[in-house]
Amino acid sequence: MQIFTEAREMTAAVKKWRASGKTVGLVPTMGYFHQGHLSLMRRAREENDVVVVSLFVNPLQFGPREDLDIYPRDFQRDRQLAEEVGVDCIFFPSVEEMYPQPFLTKVVVGKITEVMCGKARPGHFEGVTTVVAKLFHIIPADRAYFGQKDAQQVRVIQKMVEDLNFDIDIRICPTVREEDGLAASSRNVYLSGEERERATLLYRSLERAQRVIERGERRAEAVEKSIREMLEGQPGIDLEYVAVYNNIDLEPVEILQGEVLIALAAWVGGTRLIDNVLIRIDDK
Amino acid sequence: MQIFTEAREMTAAVKKWRASGKTVGLVPTMGYFHQGHLSLMRRAREENDVVVVSLFVNPLQFGPREDLDIYPRDFQRDRQLAEEVGVDCIFFPSVEEMYPQPFLTKVVVGKITEVMCGKARPGHFEGVTTVVAKLFHIIPADRAYFGQKDAQQVRVIQKMVEDLNFDIDIRICPTVREEDGLAASSRNVYLSGEERERATLLYRSLERAQRVIERGERRAEAVEKSIREMLEGQPGIDLEYVAVYNNIDLEPVEILQGEVLIALAAWVGGTRLIDNVLIRIDDK
Repeated sequence: MQIFTEAREMTAAVKKWRASGKTVGLVPTMGYFHQGHLSLMRRAREENDVVVVSLFVNPLQFGPREDLDIYPRDFQRDRQLAEEVGVDCIFFPSVEEMYPQPFLTKVVVGKITEVMCGKARPGHFEGVTTVVAKLFHIIPADRAYFGQKDAQQVRVIQKMVEDLNFDIDIRICPTVREEDGLAASSRNVYLSGEERERATLLYRSLERAQRVIERGERRAEAVEKSIREMLEGQPGIDLEYVAVYNNIDLEPVEILQGEVLIALAAWVGGTRLIDNVLIRIDDK
Repeated sequence: MQIFTEAREMTAAVKKWRASGKTVGLVPTMGYFHQGHLSLMRRAREENDVVVVSLFVNPLQFGPREDLDIYPRDFQRDRQLAEEVGVDCIFFPSVEEMYPQPFLTKVVVGKITEVMCGKARPGHFEGVTTVVAKLFHIIPADRAYFGQKDAQQVRVIQKMVEDLNFDIDIRICPTVREEDGLAASSRNVYLSGEERERATLLYRSLERAQRVIERGERRAEAVEKSIREMLEGQPGIDLEYVAVYNNIDLEPVEILQGEVLIALAAWVGGTRLIDNVLIRIDDK
């Protein structure tokens, strides 16, 4: 497995692969791989001749009071895991390589970044779209793989690709969960044993919402309430938002219809976790 | 000569050319071709197997009180001129094709867009960088050609390309002038006979500045003064700015050294014109 640290060399390699008729799949990551990352890599492995994983903890998408400095990192472990699932190369640039100073440019998606996580994390999605635009240029792949766990990020990146005519196919993979339902996340390592136990309530509340809908509930307000009832007032859990939105323009729905995103963010102790489910409702 | 109006078809054609080993040169324009545009096309013709001209009057780069509605347009004339200089194809999209609603994304370059024309035209450069990013994706060329007449635009696009790792070679071509020195511009057609006469003062003031520098002047303030003396108080001319900036980060210089941009904007009647000269000073 090859490791590239310089953008120019990475681009040259990808262009060579593509010129020789090979398809290239890109999995952008911030490292500290879990089963979610590995599922993206496996999917990319199935669908492409060459699989490139980018590994870059992007400072631009962290707020000033967020966890950039303590974000978990373990390159040797990541390298081994990537190799085991058949990744061909890792793009592993330094911050200086990605953001030589002065760095003046940003890619901004409006409106759908102002809700949900965008409210609590101003500037976060600008950081994401800017680094993803760079990665799409450095690694001109046929396909890029993202996890549905980051539901809003998925919509924001799809919108950027559509609006700016990026010539890349965005493929979304299902959220990978632990046995007890907790969504796989690099940030799960922050949780103490007790917090880890509590954190299972997040997905359980989403499962409850799904059952409520299966039983016929179509009012977004009632679905949201079923989640809030389960999480609000729980010791050690601080619910940040519950969103029952249509999954196209991330606007609140009143009556569930079409593709509906039910998403939440909550603090479990000092750790901010997100989770979501996508529901398809085709009432006549 | 081929005309493409749809982004998807344009991209497919360029990818086909490049896959067959042909080099592609792109000349982004807003149409109403003058000798400046044609010089870019001729240069692209010399340096590439295939020359693509994009022709799109980009609403995003016009302010609400600017001349979008009256901006000169003549597709049949442009088409003929392009054909005469050997252009292979024109990308001529509609506004709906470029900005299907809702359109939420923009590419923003900071700092160097806040001076000079950026001051008088808030949002202008965002419109430029957003449309150019789109064009670079729709037409993944080897090289793109811009005129030095739009000196600040050149620096902004170069910065965007550098910061976002666009894989394209930006080539800058010298300003083309009328016999009396007036810089070629689509907006020159707005000038009445009298205004057209007056407008020659703009370049004459830049020539004066160059003479002052040739005679040994190195103080930016004195160079700026030599221009202001010639233009300020002239009936029918309203000077907007004079900039004596270094051409890297567009910051004011005090003592001329290295590559210095001397640029100005002025209203001649109801028409806003810009012009500039680049001076290289290598004093030890």
